[in-house]
Amino acid sequence: MSTRVLEHPSTEELRLESVLHALADPMRLEVVRFLAEAGREVACSEIDLAVSKSTGTHHYRVLREAGIISQVYRGTAKLNSLRRADLDTRFPGLLDSVITAAGAG
Amino acid sequence: MSTRVLEHPSTEELRLESVLHALADPMRLEVVRFLAEAGREVACSEIDLAVSKSTGTHHYRVLREAGIISQVYRGTAKLNSLRRADLDTRFPGLLDSVITAAGAG
Repeated sequence: MSTRVLEHPSTEELRLESVLHALADPMRLEVVRFLAEAGREVACSEIDLAVSKSTGTHHYRVLREAGIISQVYRGTAKLNSLRRADLDTRFPGLLDSVITAAGAG
Repeated sequence: MSTRVLEHPSTEELRLESVLHALADPMRLEVVRFLAEAGREVACSEIDLAVSKSTGTHHYRVLREAGIISQVYRGTAKLNSLRRADLDTRFPGLLDSVITAAGAG
């Protein structure tokens, strides 16, 4: 069995423009809000985005590559979690203000 | 002489996705930081973006249409200012966290 490890930017590699771009989408904001509320690892299948599987996969990849979420394989499932500590370290207050604004939206 | 008034979204019309998208660009972030520091109306010509005039105009328009800046004509000059109060009302803490992060970047 191959070990599949997905690439993630390090905390130092997080770029503000990429983070803002990744957040500038209603579906991806929905994922971020869901993960923030859950406060745990969540399988993609738990979040109902009402889009095709490939579109959903795309949105998760954009979030991972921007450094907003972490994705790990557990068997055939991909588990997602918010990189809250990393984001708070690099961009203090940003994630919270976006989540609050998205909730008020 | 015609009075040229540029269109601006009202405070209620500001959309989080549009604001985040508009901020997700290094040139536009530079304009926002400049205006935040200036704290006054600034002519486009005062901000050296090192791009063509049409590209610069595009960036200012994206910022205006997202509701991040206000643009008014004074004679032939277009004066820009940050809609800080409007943004703070709709998305508390967002602008400050982005400006701080952009400065630290």
